[in-house]
Formats: sequence, structure tokens, C-alpha cells
Amino acid sequence: MNIISSSQNDKIKYLNKLYRSRNRRKEGVFILEGKRLIEAALAGGADFKQVFLTPAFFKSAANEKLLAALKLEADLIYLEEKLLKETASTVNPQGILAVVEESVFKGQDFYNKADKILLLDRIQDPGNMGTIIRTAVAAGFDGIIALKGSVDIYNQKVIRSTMGGIFSIAIRQKLSQQEFLVELKEKALDHELLAADIEAEEYHFEHQYQSKLILMIGNEANGLDPQLLTKAKTKIKIPLAGEIESLNAAVAASVIAFEILAQALKKSN
Amino acid sequence: MNIISSSQNDKIKYLNKLYRSRNRRKEGVFILEGKRLIEAALAGGADFKQVFLTPAFFKSAANEKLLAALKLEADLIYLEEKLLKETASTVNPQGILAVVEESVFKGQDFYNKADKILLLDRIQDPGNMGTIIRTAVAAGFDGIIALKGSVDIYNQKVIRSTMGGIFSIAIRQKLSQQEFLVELKEKALDHELLAADIEAEEYHFEHQYQSKLILMIGNEANGLDPQLLTKAKTKIKIPLAGEIESLNAAVAASVIAFEILAQALKKSN
Repeated sequence: MNIISSSQNDKIKYLNKLYRSRNRRKEGVFILEGKRLIEAALAGGADFKQVFLTPAFFKSAANEKLLAALKLEADLIYLEEKLLKETASTVNPQGILAVVEESVFKGQDFYNKADKILLLDRIQDPGNMGTIIRTAVAAGFDGIIALKGSVDIYNQKVIRSTMGGIFSIAIRQKLSQQEFLVELKEKALDHELLAADIEAEEYHFEHQYQSKLILMIGNEANGLDPQLLTKAKTKIKIPLAGEIESLNAAVAASVIAFEILAQALKKSN
Repeated sequence: MNIISSSQNDKIKYLNKLYRSRNRRKEGVFILEGKRLIEAALAGGADFKQVFLTPAFFKSAANEKLLAALKLEADLIYLEEKLLKETASTVNPQGILAVVEESVFKGQDFYNKADKILLLDRIQDPGNMGTIIRTAVAAGFDGIIALKGSVDIYNQKVIRSTMGGIFSIAIRQKLSQQEFLVELKEKALDHELLAADIEAEEYHFEHQYQSKLILMIGNEANGLDPQLLTKAKTKIKIPLAGEIESLNAAVAASVIAFEILAQALKKSN
């Protein structure tokens, strides 16, 4: 067993580079830290490129099954505990991290695959972004579009906050508003475009949702970009009963997404 | 104008003590930092005990109205900018902070005043707690019970995350489960006790909610305490359509709270 101990090792240098968002995007990969996330990625069918682990992780009987599965997927690279901790962004990476391929759904493929899409316009808080993705998966959404100006979805804090949800939904990010609007006209012809808008006339529970849709949620401080708002076929608002001016973006997305799911379940009964 | 510059000044020493949760509770007060929160507290009818501000804040024409209102409420105490920054917990306290009385609703008063109560069992993340309170207010809830083991609601991060909502809802905290169960039997006779429970038979949108209710939301990792669960007259669950085991506690609370509001609005139409 060859155990890397130096940060000057080429594999470690490469891994370190991937901790910068720009380099991850160039390589089309992201990083998973810790056993739970890696198990979730395996279950979700992610493509593993490299797995970095400590000798102690390798030796633990509790990890035997996971490692047998990972061996079929990627090279196992051993490194010293100290080096892993230096490299990882979580305080306790639990002895293992992996480099995984970004799943890429381009253009028509994405809109064919994803019936219920959540579009996020400049959502900046990583915890919020992660919670939104987790909730979207839970509510049966199958696509996420994060427009330029949103936090990188493959940021460690976002990934952790999705609680494994990131492996169960098609993701597109760094799309400009213009690129999205072109796609909308050319490729998303069957999707109803919905905007959550505090000025809307219709409450979110009054609208009858179509089975294919794109729900747009805006930046918390500024709401949706006006240009996106004008394109929306349907605008809906969540009633505010108390002395509060707005909802957290993750809360707004959740309330509407689960209303859509509730309507579908009521219909199917 | 007497401007305090020393942290050894008695008023500053007292203020510093209040940054510890235990001391705040003993005095029955909490601290607000920054202009926006203080304006929200004024609008919400909070009782001010002291206001600490910098000479620059006093001199700014933009603050004239606020200061005229505050003068009627409490002593204005001037301190140097440097001292304010040392004392406050936010990086930029914007020249002003205030000590405000905790609103106390005890026993029967609380249950008379609050028709729709959200009970939080060991919610620990301050951001989550703040978002839950903000959402509860938005959905028309009028009472919060945070059981022992939950984060202190008068923690600065919680207060800020409520976005002013904290002044529009009756709050009880640090109640033990036993104390709550006694009150429930003796004082909350008209309230329907509801539990969000992943094992429930009934979906949250199938249940017909009563106008007086207590909705119990559990700790994210462990859910509701089993003893609370057995007391619930009604158990409801949010459907999970995707490969996700649970929802964020703030999301779960939001989805149910807005379903309750939606039902009420549909009935009143």
C-alpha cells in the first residue's frame, strides 16, 4: 500500500486545485467529503473519478462493503490522516473524500428529463441553496437551474445541506438569464413558467399546476429579476397573514413546491 | 452630552453582563443591535429599558424621528463608537443598540392570547429558529413555545433571522416538557394538539385544522420526543416524493403552517 504523505505529490496537488470553484468547473467534477455523502453518491449512481482515503479508514471493518463498491468505480488513493485533514474543507472529513463527475444535462436533454424544474435567481446563501435542493427533491422536483450570480452548487456547504439530495436531481448552473430565456423559447415549450411574486393576484393554492413546469424563485433581498418576471405565464403569491414583509427564499420555494405535490396527490386519488 | 468611553463604566458593565443568556433571563430583557431592529421593536410596541448610541448616530438627520420616539421610551446613553463596537456582537451595530424587556406571557394568559401556537422541541440552530419564527408570524401564528434544549430565542442571530417577526408573536421558552404537559391539561383545553410525524397516516393537506391549535415540530435529527408524540391528538406527515429521508425543521414547519393558513382563507371565501 502506497501512502502519500507529501502535499507536493501530484495527486494531492491536483486535488488541492479542485478546491477552487473555477478549476472544478473546468474539469467538470466536484468533491465529496465523508462517508455518508459518498454512500449517498454511490446510491445515486454518481461517477467516481478518484477516492482518497486514510489507511485507518481502509482497515475499519465497518467500511468493508463501501470500499468493495468503490473499488469497482475508481482508483483508491491512500494518504496520511494529517494530509487529508489539511486538504479537506470540513473539520472532520472522516477518513475519506472523493472526486466525482458533475452530471451534465445540456439543452434539450435537460428539459426532456426534468418535468418539474426549480429555477433559482441569484440565491447566495449556501445553507439556503442546499435546503432548497433538498426540499425540491423531497417534493418530487427533478431539475434545478441556478442562474449566474447564485452560489456554486458544488460548494461543500451546499452539498452537505442537500443531505444527499444533490444526487437525485438534474442540475444546471451558471446559466445567464439570456441563455435561459433562449432555451425557454426553443427547448422548454411544454413547461409552464411560474413566478413567485409578492405582487401577484393569485394565491399559490388557488392555481391549478400543470405537470410540466418551471417555478422561478428570486434572490431574497431583491426578488426575481424584472425581465424574468415579465416572461412568467403565471404569477403566484403566498399569503402573508402577519407583520412580515417577505419569506425566506427556501421557505417560499418549499411552500409552493409542496402545494404542487399536494395537488398531484389529490388528483391521483 | 456625557459620552462614555470606558468599559469600566457601570452602565457598560451592566450591558456586557447582558450578553450572557443566563443574565438576560434573570433580568427579563434582551438586546437589539442596529437601527432596523430597533425600529421594528418600536413598531411592535416593545418596552425599552436603555438605548445606547454614538454621538454620530445622534447627530445624523436621518435618525431624528427614531430618536424622538425613543426618548419617550427610555434613557438615551451616549458612548464612543469604539466602545460600542467592542460591546456589540454584530460586526457593524450601526451606532445604536437597545435593551428591551422580554414580553412575558404566563400560563393561562398565553393560551388565551395565542390561538395558533407553534411548539419547538429542541431546535438548536439559531438561523433555523429565526426562520421558523419569521415564518410562523407570516402564516398567522400568534404563539411560540420553545421547550428546554432549544437555542435561546433572544440570541442575536435568532433575533436577526426573525426579520422583525419576534415583536409580533407571544413567546414562551425554557419550558420543560413536563411543565408543558401540565399546562396542556389544565390551560390549553381548547387547543388541538398536532404533531408533525414522519410515521403518521394522514397527510398534512388532508387534515381539517381547528382554529385553535398547537403544532409540534421536533428536533431535526431526532424528531419529536416520543412522550410528546403520544400526547398528540392528531399526527400528520408531509409526503416525501423523492429520495430524501426528512425535511429541514423550518421547511416542515412552513409547509404545514401555510397549509393551515390556506385552509382558513379558503373557508373565509
